[in-house]
Amino acid sequence: MHNFTFANPVKILFGRDVIGKLAAEAAGSGKKALLVYGGGSIKKNGVYAALTAALAANGVEITEHAGVKPNPVLSHALEGIKKARAAGCDMIIAAGGGSVIDESKTIAAGVKYDGDVWDFFCGKAQPRAALPLFTVLTIPATGSEMNSGCVITNELTRQKYSAGGVVLFPKASALDPETTLTLPRPQIGYGAVDSIAHIIEGYFTTTDRDAAVTDELVHGLARSIISSTDRILADQADYNARASMMWSATLALNGLPTCGYAGTHFINHAIEHALSAIYDIPHGAGLAIVMPAWFRHHLEKDGPARLAQFGKAVFGTPTAEETIKAFETFFKKAGAPVRLAEAGIPAEDIPRIAENAMSLIRLWGMKHEQPEIEKILRNAV
Amino acid sequence: MHNFTFANPVKILFGRDVIGKLAAEAAGSGKKALLVYGGGSIKKNGVYAALTAALAANGVEITEHAGVKPNPVLSHALEGIKKARAAGCDMIIAAGGGSVIDESKTIAAGVKYDGDVWDFFCGKAQPRAALPLFTVLTIPATGSEMNSGCVITNELTRQKYSAGGVVLFPKASALDPETTLTLPRPQIGYGAVDSIAHIIEGYFTTTDRDAAVTDELVHGLARSIISSTDRILADQADYNARASMMWSATLALNGLPTCGYAGTHFINHAIEHALSAIYDIPHGAGLAIVMPAWFRHHLEKDGPARLAQFGKAVFGTPTAEETIKAFETFFKKAGAPVRLAEAGIPAEDIPRIAENAMSLIRLWGMKHEQPEIEKILRNAV
Repeated sequence: MHNFTFANPVKILFGRDVIGKLAAEAAGSGKKALLVYGGGSIKKNGVYAALTAALAANGVEITEHAGVKPNPVLSHALEGIKKARAAGCDMIIAAGGGSVIDESKTIAAGVKYDGDVWDFFCGKAQPRAALPLFTVLTIPATGSEMNSGCVITNELTRQKYSAGGVVLFPKASALDPETTLTLPRPQIGYGAVDSIAHIIEGYFTTTDRDAAVTDELVHGLARSIISSTDRILADQADYNARASMMWSATLALNGLPTCGYAGTHFINHAIEHALSAIYDIPHGAGLAIVMPAWFRHHLEKDGPARLAQFGKAVFGTPTAEETIKAFETFFKKAGAPVRLAEAGIPAEDIPRIAENAMSLIRLWGMKHEQPEIEKILRNAV
Repeated sequence: MHNFTFANPVKILFGRDVIGKLAAEAAGSGKKALLVYGGGSIKKNGVYAALTAALAANGVEITEHAGVKPNPVLSHALEGIKKARAAGCDMIIAAGGGSVIDESKTIAAGVKYDGDVWDFFCGKAQPRAALPLFTVLTIPATGSEMNSGCVITNELTRQKYSAGGVVLFPKASALDPETTLTLPRPQIGYGAVDSIAHIIEGYFTTTDRDAAVTDELVHGLARSIISSTDRILADQADYNARASMMWSATLALNGLPTCGYAGTHFINHAIEHALSAIYDIPHGAGLAIVMPAWFRHHLEKDGPARLAQFGKAVFGTPTAEETIKAFETFFKKAGAPVRLAEAGIPAEDIPRIAENAMSLIRLWGMKHEQPEIEKILRNAV
């Protein structure tokens, strides 16, 4: 078990009708909020009405910044920074999924930074200050509501890059499983795939480890994500399954599932970011394509031990090969593509995708060369 | 799944040689520390030397407060409060196990309170301020290093009561598994029993729940505690087993394993506190006696479902009865007594023990009457 530091100060308000509590928390931090959201689903599911009423009741004025895209783009974040400055906002409130929260983090740090906010994503600078951020989560998937990272796509350069820093932790996040009851089926599935992807990156990064407690947490969260998704797909009104899924997805990327694993890398994410940066496909769809391909590569390179251990504990599969098949079966059941062609991506594009991924792999300090990435992608043909 | 709030701001510095990092964190909070420890084991295992050197290197002056007892007593905490005030300490540094950390929390809150610090334990007041607290953990067991509670025994009234409040969270805790390599065998065993007790209280409190994710975390932590203890008993120098045990014990009472369970009660702890308040037996020993007795009562009152579920996931046992036997087998293997007589406690004392427990049960707002507690204790004859 390797040395680690764990610190996660986010206050989680979980369950039915917690939006009022979040508004009260926010009112302790400021009086003028930039309210960030996406395409308007929060107006259909009641979150917008409940949140704006609760903020008004707590004396918080809002300036709206709507229209965040599923793969949030730099230009829209820059607009948000301008708006927040112009209105003199002293906090950010994000209402939506991971994309909304990630763009909100970008805005929160950008308002406090004199340079170009993209500096935080391309490694030129680290965020040292940010406006306080509060979130109302409506899509269980990215874990952004309880971590200090965010991902933004630069449309000009076709780069989907990430930034992070302790100032980006939300102060508090409201997780009401009822807000997820109206999620479209694809988002249920892609969220499940994304959460599984977060759980497996650290677990499979190195073979040099012996961290039984963290292995147990990873297995338990994976089982919970899979069984909750099965229940939700069978009965979309199952509140307790929605609740288990929501909390599992949050825990999957809050720092706990990698404690004691040395050198956690995000190789599947690095390759996927290239896919969604180039083709603008959903992050979960890209991950469902990359993971089985990467698992085959891992099996060849590092042997069957880790895949077999995970499969035995999570799927009840007897071998590493069967474990990879079980992942694919789950991804397909979730409605995700598991091959490039199923997302309309031609095999001829592999060198271009690998080249895009390589810039991120270098930035994140991973030791892979382009031929290896192309080889992994060919497993997805 | 019931509503919950989760917030735990403690920074964990985990692994080999993290004491220097803790001293640096502490130096950010003040310049004069009250250093609280127990019977001197930290002088044998190198913690005292490493910690005092690191504090000196970071410019932190110390005033020593040694001699904390295994069931820490109010009179010694009151002395600590006086010492800290007299020396003008601006923080507390605890080096030891749960008893040292609990007394340190009492001192940290007491220094900032004009009244009698016992007010916090008997329900007369809530701690609203405390000196910043830093801990160096040397015994995995109580979880106090990552939570906001503490337990103190009032020797005059023979009451072992608890206090809590967000101001009591340590700022940072250093967990170096190497400091546990020299633990005497009984403390290994009692620590394991205590951790198991923390894991099961919420899980078994009510039958009205459906929180698959938290069930998975509880099962996983229980398996990790049991398998790590088995490894440690087989090879006391097994660093990775020590590490998994240490982190499991911390997570067992940091708030996570009860998320979504309604109305978590600490009935086993309430009865045990009476045992160790009256007979001054180790907390882990008392818990190993109480838990099987309470499980038999639970089986009779609430049926076999929950015990069977836990047993299947953790021990691989087929029935609730077999699960209770598996708990007992584990406690015995850990070197703990599982019947009152094995700790030299006569059955005739049962009414007196139950009466002592009742005052705590009432204080904690649990709905049990003395005849029920006596009935549970008779299961331990």
